[in-house]
Amino acid sequence: MAIPTVDFWFEFASTYSYPTAIRIAPLARAAGVAVRWRPFMLGPIFKAQGWTTSPFNLYPAKGRNMWRDLERICLDLGLPFLRPELFPQNALQAARVAVVALAESWGEDYCRAIYRSEFGEGRNLEEEGTIAGVLQKLGQDAKAVLQRARSDGVKSQLRAQTEEAQRLDIFGSPTFVTSDGELFWGNDRLEAALKWATR
Amino acid sequence: MAIPTVDFWFEFASTYSYPTAIRIAPLARAAGVAVRWRPFMLGPIFKAQGWTTSPFNLYPAKGRNMWRDLERICLDLGLPFLRPELFPQNALQAARVAVVALAESWGEDYCRAIYRSEFGEGRNLEEEGTIAGVLQKLGQDAKAVLQRARSDGVKSQLRAQTEEAQRLDIFGSPTFVTSDGELFWGNDRLEAALKWATR
Repeated sequence: MAIPTVDFWFEFASTYSYPTAIRIAPLARAAGVAVRWRPFMLGPIFKAQGWTTSPFNLYPAKGRNMWRDLERICLDLGLPFLRPELFPQNALQAARVAVVALAESWGEDYCRAIYRSEFGEGRNLEEEGTIAGVLQKLGQDAKAVLQRARSDGVKSQLRAQTEEAQRLDIFGSPTFVTSDGELFWGNDRLEAALKWATR
Repeated sequence: MAIPTVDFWFEFASTYSYPTAIRIAPLARAAGVAVRWRPFMLGPIFKAQGWTTSPFNLYPAKGRNMWRDLERICLDLGLPFLRPELFPQNALQAARVAVVALAESWGEDYCRAIYRSEFGEGRNLEEEGTIAGVLQKLGQDAKAVLQRARSDGVKSQLRAQTEEAQRLDIFGSPTFVTSDGELFWGNDRLEAALKWATR
């Protein structure tokens, strides 16, 4: 029998994807599920439904609750939390680097490190040095990786993944899609998605 | 020491409040937490942020996911689920009756029965007989209760609760507020709210 697989769709601007990125590997391992990390961009999807920024900024009460809720979740998990000044952050470059990284063995470590940097240390991914700093800490040649991330092949792969996300009816991050096409949205649905995959 | 208390704020139009209404009493009892059931109206709160209907109707992909997600949740809980044709339903009368009922011993049974009727049997709360039928099944004098629900005192109590919900920064249903003012939103945050209350 094939190993059950879950596609983990994520956008680096998404707050709740931070605890998911940290939680998913050990939980999936324990459940016997393989996870495919699929970065995509939420911007075009939000734009298509008339949003020009995060709904957490458009609806302030919802936003206030989200920040507090995320803080509580991180506290429960023993994860560092520091709200970044800038939200949402344009994570296009970070996502392109993820496309490069996920084709290699250090991809998941990179994704976790980006989320930790953004929401654990309150860093700004749009600043020149943030992504380079993460790459260096992972022992990568930052300049070379960033250059590959700017290639046409990588750009079009990320664009294609965003289009695939839209076709799958994905509207937020994190989203989990099982091999039989069941869609689960939200950090709080991770366990349900893994359970579904192993039915 | 005082018994920890959680206020359970709910609107009968809300889908995810159905599993919460069924789950909250046994979970709170096990946790040693007292629950105050606080009906309110989401309409004025949605209107204040520019919505004229449910966000699940405004954003179709989100709506499709919600109905499927609710169906899965009900399946897990062994709860009947039948999507009503009309959504969202104007639950003003049902909420006014809840104000009457919750002042008596059968209040929580009434609230659970309304949710079961709406999302377990797909009934329409706006139809004349639906609420009366629920009241009759509970052994109540439907005509007398409905008359009391139309009194000025009940109307203004529900209005005051809706205003209180707005002051508390509530933006959705179900919402849980602990006695130290911590706010939790969503059926999936029920356990966290009870845990917080007993810290």
